Amino acid sequence: MKVTIKDVAREAEVSVATASMAINNKRGVNAETRNKVLKIAQKLAYVPNYSARSLVTKDSRSIGLLVPEIINPYYSSIVDIMAKLAEQKGYTLLLGISNSKSRTEKMYIESFMERRVLGVIVVPMLRDHPDIGHLEMLRTEKIPMVFCTETYDGCTEPCVMCDFSSGEYEMTRYLLNQGLKNICFLNVRMDANFTKLRLHGFMKAMDEMGITAPEENLFYVEEPNFQAAYDITDSILERGPEAIICINDMMTLAIMKRLDERGVRIPEDISVAGFDDMMFAELAQKPITTVRQPLADICRQTMDILEGEIKGGARRAPAGKQRIVSIRPELVIRNTTK
Amino acid sequence: MKVTIKDVAREAEVSVATASMAINNKRGVNAETRNKVLKIAQKLAYVPNYSARSLVTKDSRSIGLLVPEIINPYYSSIVDIMAKLAEQKGYTLLLGISNSKSRTEKMYIESFMERRVLGVIVVPMLRDHPDIGHLEMLRTEKIPMVFCTETYDGCTEPCVMCDFSSGEYEMTRYLLNQGLKNICFLNVRMDANFTKLRLHGFMKAMDEMGITAPEENLFYVEEPNFQAAYDITDSILERGPEAIICINDMMTLAIMKRLDERGVRIPEDISVAGFDDMMFAELAQKPITTVRQPLADICRQTMDILEGEIKGGARRAPAGKQRIVSIRPELVIRNTTK
Repeated sequence: MKVTIKDVAREAEVSVATASMAINNKRGVNAETRNKVLKIAQKLAYVPNYSARSLVTKDSRSIGLLVPEIINPYYSSIVDIMAKLAEQKGYTLLLGISNSKSRTEKMYIESFMERRVLGVIVVPMLRDHPDIGHLEMLRTEKIPMVFCTETYDGCTEPCVMCDFSSGEYEMTRYLLNQGLKNICFLNVRMDANFTKLRLHGFMKAMDEMGITAPEENLFYVEEPNFQAAYDITDSILERGPEAIICINDMMTLAIMKRLDERGVRIPEDISVAGFDDMMFAELAQKPITTVRQPLADICRQTMDILEGEIKGGARRAPAGKQRIVSIRPELVIRNTTK
Repeated sequence: MKVTIKDVAREAEVSVATASMAINNKRGVNAETRNKVLKIAQKLAYVPNYSARSLVTKDSRSIGLLVPEIINPYYSSIVDIMAKLAEQKGYTLLLGISNSKSRTEKMYIESFMERRVLGVIVVPMLRDHPDIGHLEMLRTEKIPMVFCTETYDGCTEPCVMCDFSSGEYEMTRYLLNQGLKNICFLNVRMDANFTKLRLHGFMKAMDEMGITAPEENLFYVEEPNFQAAYDITDSILERGPEAIICINDMMTLAIMKRLDERGVRIPEDISVAGFDDMMFAELAQKPITTVRQPLADICRQTMDILEGEIKGGARRAPAGKQRIVSIRPELVIRNTTK
């Protein structure tokens, strides 16, 4: 027959409530009694009935994390860091992979709410103006929400993100200072901060040096993936660039592969620079010059803000103003630039 | 004031139970009534109180997935595939990243049980003989468990995994047939099926060709990561190999990097082969010859077995015998081998 908490209490000569407090590590029971109960629980091979317990535990201590995908190491790194931070803070992390679909993101939000999450971290979907009506459910239930790495337009919840503009500005200045002037810029055709701010930084650095980047040097892919960047490389080459700046490392790897196939030497013939500093940037056959997004910092500050809101109640910025915490990235010069 | 289900029911002139069934998409209400209720719910901007609902919904329809890490694309791919399969089947997937620590795996199991998971998929920790006493909690509560890609010794729950032995056997035969005889094999020093079976396949192919692989051609790293493989490459080179077989693609990339630095041409001077066929094997500057683990198949069969056990009750193999479903991998010949 299965050992119950009553058996443990009887054997330890304490009340069921005391035995329960000892086993669940709650206050209200002294160290001596606690040790006695735990020893007896072990002796009797008592296993707590978690299913029953969850029905009465109101505070689930869970938080939800939404990411647009998990294959790209950029997002799996975020999940990895967030899981460790949540563990440190005693939260269980519930993960939702939206695949950039509103329907899926909505499903996860509902699932998070059914599991009584205390707060939600949103890494936004990768698409133009997605339907985000489902976020209203969180607001109605007063569940705090913090955006991470990017925000949706029109939202007023806090957002922690990389200062994309200053990162691309510094990279462009570095290349210009190396004497490279004919620079092509490969972006994603998406109406989002992470595309607009990077372009802004690039243009600002060019302007300051008195160089107007011709419209023809700005290239766009529809999806920020390897194949798209590989396919567009031949068109970029037709502009005869001295350098190519790419808005992420994954696409930079693709450009490098195509340049290699075309017999173009990096950096002797063309310098190439990425963004993110994902693991493979350093491990690549030729380590990539890139801009390091301080992901650990971004994640930690996101979690801290969320925890603050969970503990203190959501603190909103004055009417309609979103609080953006902008974290400065770092230039990492390796072997793909002169 | 907040709109409740009672307000919706009154306005729609139906009972609260009917309104609830309509809104929660349950059977027992006809299409006409359902539409009427949904329209009124929308008109009144009714938002279901999910927190309250979860207290009475016993069937949480969640399953837990444990993985040892998430940064390696091999594991993020598993998470990605499992999340999609779970969504298709109407389960919410709860993720636990153990970082190969028993303490963490135990914490996630407890958290899964508190959330009343219907079953758990375990991708085992990457270490020798870890403490797995916590799995007993699942058995006590009769929560089905299925192992994926690898199993712990002594467990009798089903396991779906790649046929590592036949994969490495085929790869070795391929290289031998190309006339390469002095082959070095880079393994991980870990007492696990995924290391032993690969070695077994390698030795079997060598034996069949009447070649005894000298003990000195077998190399081991402590951790299956990039740096460890990079560091050991110089020692492997001292054996003057015609080919190097490596038990994963990540380590193969590391070897290739070091060979490149040493001026060794691949495959002209040395052929190099990996295992897994993770995304970067194909996208690498020089696409890698490897053994493709049929991850989609492995994940689908794992999920199907778990679903069967959830629906039909855990079916155990006869006393102490573990059911192993072995999925045949596929040779993928690319540019790193002659």
